[in-house]
Amino acid sequence: MSKNTDELFKNVIAHAKEYGFVFPSSEIYDGLSAVYDYGQNGAELKNNIKAYWWKSMVQLNDNIVGIDSAIFMHPKIWEASGHVGGFSDPMIDNKDSKKRYRADQLLEDKIDRYDKDGKTDKAEQLQLELDNAMKADDLNRLRDLIIEHEIACPVSGTRNWTEVRQFNLMFSTQMGAIADDADKVYLRPETAQGIFVNYLNVQKSGRMKIPFGIAQIGKAFRNEVIARQFIIRMREFEQMEMQFFVRPGTQKEWFEKWKAARLNWHLALGTAAEKYRYHEHTKLAHYADAAYDIEFEFPFGFKEVEGIHSRTDFDLSQHQQFSGKKMQYFDPEVDPETGKPFGNYIPYVIETSIGLDRMFLLTLLNAYEEEDLSTEEKQDSRTVLRLHPCLAPVKAAIFPLTKKDGLPEKAREIMDSLKLDFNIQYEEKDAIGKRYRRQDAIGTPFCITVDHQTLEDNTVTIRHRDTMAQERVAADQLNKIIGDLVSWRNVLK
Amino acid sequence: MSKNTDELFKNVIAHAKEYGFVFPSSEIYDGLSAVYDYGQNGAELKNNIKAYWWKSMVQLNDNIVGIDSAIFMHPKIWEASGHVGGFSDPMIDNKDSKKRYRADQLLEDKIDRYDKDGKTDKAEQLQLELDNAMKADDLNRLRDLIIEHEIACPVSGTRNWTEVRQFNLMFSTQMGAIADDADKVYLRPETAQGIFVNYLNVQKSGRMKIPFGIAQIGKAFRNEVIARQFIIRMREFEQMEMQFFVRPGTQKEWFEKWKAARLNWHLALGTAAEKYRYHEHTKLAHYADAAYDIEFEFPFGFKEVEGIHSRTDFDLSQHQQFSGKKMQYFDPEVDPETGKPFGNYIPYVIETSIGLDRMFLLTLLNAYEEEDLSTEEKQDSRTVLRLHPCLAPVKAAIFPLTKKDGLPEKAREIMDSLKLDFNIQYEEKDAIGKRYRRQDAIGTPFCITVDHQTLEDNTVTIRHRDTMAQERVAADQLNKIIGDLVSWRNVLK
Repeated sequence: MSKNTDELFKNVIAHAKEYGFVFPSSEIYDGLSAVYDYGQNGAELKNNIKAYWWKSMVQLNDNIVGIDSAIFMHPKIWEASGHVGGFSDPMIDNKDSKKRYRADQLLEDKIDRYDKDGKTDKAEQLQLELDNAMKADDLNRLRDLIIEHEIACPVSGTRNWTEVRQFNLMFSTQMGAIADDADKVYLRPETAQGIFVNYLNVQKSGRMKIPFGIAQIGKAFRNEVIARQFIIRMREFEQMEMQFFVRPGTQKEWFEKWKAARLNWHLALGTAAEKYRYHEHTKLAHYADAAYDIEFEFPFGFKEVEGIHSRTDFDLSQHQQFSGKKMQYFDPEVDPETGKPFGNYIPYVIETSIGLDRMFLLTLLNAYEEEDLSTEEKQDSRTVLRLHPCLAPVKAAIFPLTKKDGLPEKAREIMDSLKLDFNIQYEEKDAIGKRYRRQDAIGTPFCITVDHQTLEDNTVTIRHRDTMAQERVAADQLNKIIGDLVSWRNVLK
Repeated sequence: MSKNTDELFKNVIAHAKEYGFVFPSSEIYDGLSAVYDYGQNGAELKNNIKAYWWKSMVQLNDNIVGIDSAIFMHPKIWEASGHVGGFSDPMIDNKDSKKRYRADQLLEDKIDRYDKDGKTDKAEQLQLELDNAMKADDLNRLRDLIIEHEIACPVSGTRNWTEVRQFNLMFSTQMGAIADDADKVYLRPETAQGIFVNYLNVQKSGRMKIPFGIAQIGKAFRNEVIARQFIIRMREFEQMEMQFFVRPGTQKEWFEKWKAARLNWHLALGTAAEKYRYHEHTKLAHYADAAYDIEFEFPFGFKEVEGIHSRTDFDLSQHQQFSGKKMQYFDPEVDPETGKPFGNYIPYVIETSIGLDRMFLLTLLNAYEEEDLSTEEKQDSRTVLRLHPCLAPVKAAIFPLTKKDGLPEKAREIMDSLKLDFNIQYEEKDAIGKRYRRQDAIGTPFCITVDHQTLEDNTVTIRHRDTMAQERVAADQLNKIIGDLVSWRNVLK
């Protein structure tokens, strides 16, 4: 992260707090690590991102439906999915400082150090060995590398290390009060399994035919060892996932379709295409036969926002095995090759999985601009969030020019005619220019000023956020003007 | 619960599963006690209830804003709120069966037994003693009453009881991987505290002036000892809470306003007024100076759906004490009595708290009807959900009369013109009558049939769910016809 982008990122975090987008959780108690709360403007922005996703996935596709499954699930589900056995990070403790670290992270840091010192050969060699050890889950080898490369604890400065052990990332709790019945349950680390275990209930009750999808928005939890970068990696976060069930053999074709469709969803918001790129997974997860990330260029580099995964029939097969229940779908369609119905099979699955909090941060970063408005006469600037109007927390702000002469009453009358359809804010304090700046800072597309002329001819001044241009329009046209600009039709096709 | 209402309740639970409203969680693993998943129609209905609440509370009131705080919070918050110390049930174990029971529940069951046996005096006497022991938190007295009244374990049949102990209802987990830093955190048992600890961040960043409110929709968790009655008492549930901050001394007036406003919110959905009633709390919680429930008549009797509580300054004062941070608000308004500003104070709080899952169940139960359609010629019936059109999961279904002659294409063309604005379903299988029944069962207000005449004059048949009346309308009028019926303007004023 260069000094400039570092500063930009810090400014956005400060802005997010100052204007009610994101607060550190439990701030009056000095915060809770890697947990954040969404303030009044953040909650609206997040709800609008959810609505955009839900409308695009569920409402516009008549073969995709949405569900809302619980965070608590039967613990066996996480055995079947592989999370109990495999969802873990390799950890090592320094015996002197008692601090715990991710072993692979210590080695990555060392590689960075070699690079910075110009020891490119050493860096490449260690990267190779690290990759091999991680691929082989070879914990002893990780420890050997730490010793060989003389990595010391940043706190104690010593090389007095424990063994490397696996640390599971799932949060667990005890459910039930009956003494002999208290069960260990996990907070789900992904929403996907809630879809898999319900897939037959949905398919049958919804009479769904392959190919079809099930979508879900919900919280997931991971006890990240090192959570960092604001809301990029949180211990409590929100996912928007869709599992698309297809006939085996057709997964490649559907994978390509969803890969393209998901990038288009991002680009429809008007974000510059060069801010996005695909990243192909070369090391595939145990359940996948293809995987791409959609990455966005954050100030600290390109990072994953969304994953498109061809998950094969791994999850459904595992649940069939672990639950003892048939997870097959009967496909009545006739196979042109055999002339018979395709019949019973376990569907293959294409997953699209987007991190809502990352999408939120991306949206904020992409919209944020410190704009220089200086002229030859005077210096001036503003901070403006150039949010897509569909996503803006407040759609329009209404200002009476002054607090008297019946202008507040007229302004409120206009607000009342709009507020059922749009999220509207009323402000009467301070000069109009100052009120414009406050609305710019939260991304409000329109400011509407009610003045003395309004009382005569029922026209108002409408000021546009991006151009700062003002025009005089009839008050009874406002509903249509605002409606046209914030319509979902502008992003959904 | 009489036999009839018992049967009705069972039918609604079966219907909820058959038509994709509510599935038992982790059903293929034989379920997880007191946890449920919302299916494709349930998720839409739940989202619509959320939207109705959010629009009514946040969008229509310019002095109320909404936030979205995390489930994980600093553990000290639950000490300050009294949940660590006081949020518990008295439990007793039978030493032979190893089964655990709520001590007060065992005694309540005994009172019911006395009543049924006509021993009214004994019932009344025990009720009085139970109430006194609960009020005094006298665990020994609870045990003595169990012994005195010769209550035996329903499983072992013995009276070999342990002491009575308090069992905390909060779920806990360990956060953080750093060995010397692993902290016990709780899953929030209510969303309200997320509002209290953020109240100054919201007030300052949103420039809110008293009186103002902060609203939130979110999950909460309680390790209920005996969870029961379907989604009425779940271990994972969702709340819609609003905390309204007022000047001390004005809380009575605001309490009355919100008490009336909240009942009106329920009644605006068209539910019969006699299904609702107020219930005044006579035994107030430690934080309250007034409390009313809004109760709905469920098949098993009147039960709380929503609470309106005058919480005084208890929570904010506690957080000031436990966090060491000032929780005061500066009120610049001039007190007419002193001629000076009201100045610094800790606001008083009126809370409105509604259980989303209960509201969901209420809505389903209230809408469900097994309607006899028999005529002299033939027997007939249908199951119809008379949901308010604003809440219906699917707003309209489109049917081509047959699968040929271009009717499916025409039907899809009409669907495409509507689906950006409404949740629309397409169905071409089975006879039209059967398709009507399926849509009745999920509460779809309109069914639209495309037939051969449509291809000639672009008119369609629109069939109304409640009256089953059909009319012929121009296809290009559909957007307006549906829009008018499902408009939020019908319930929001």
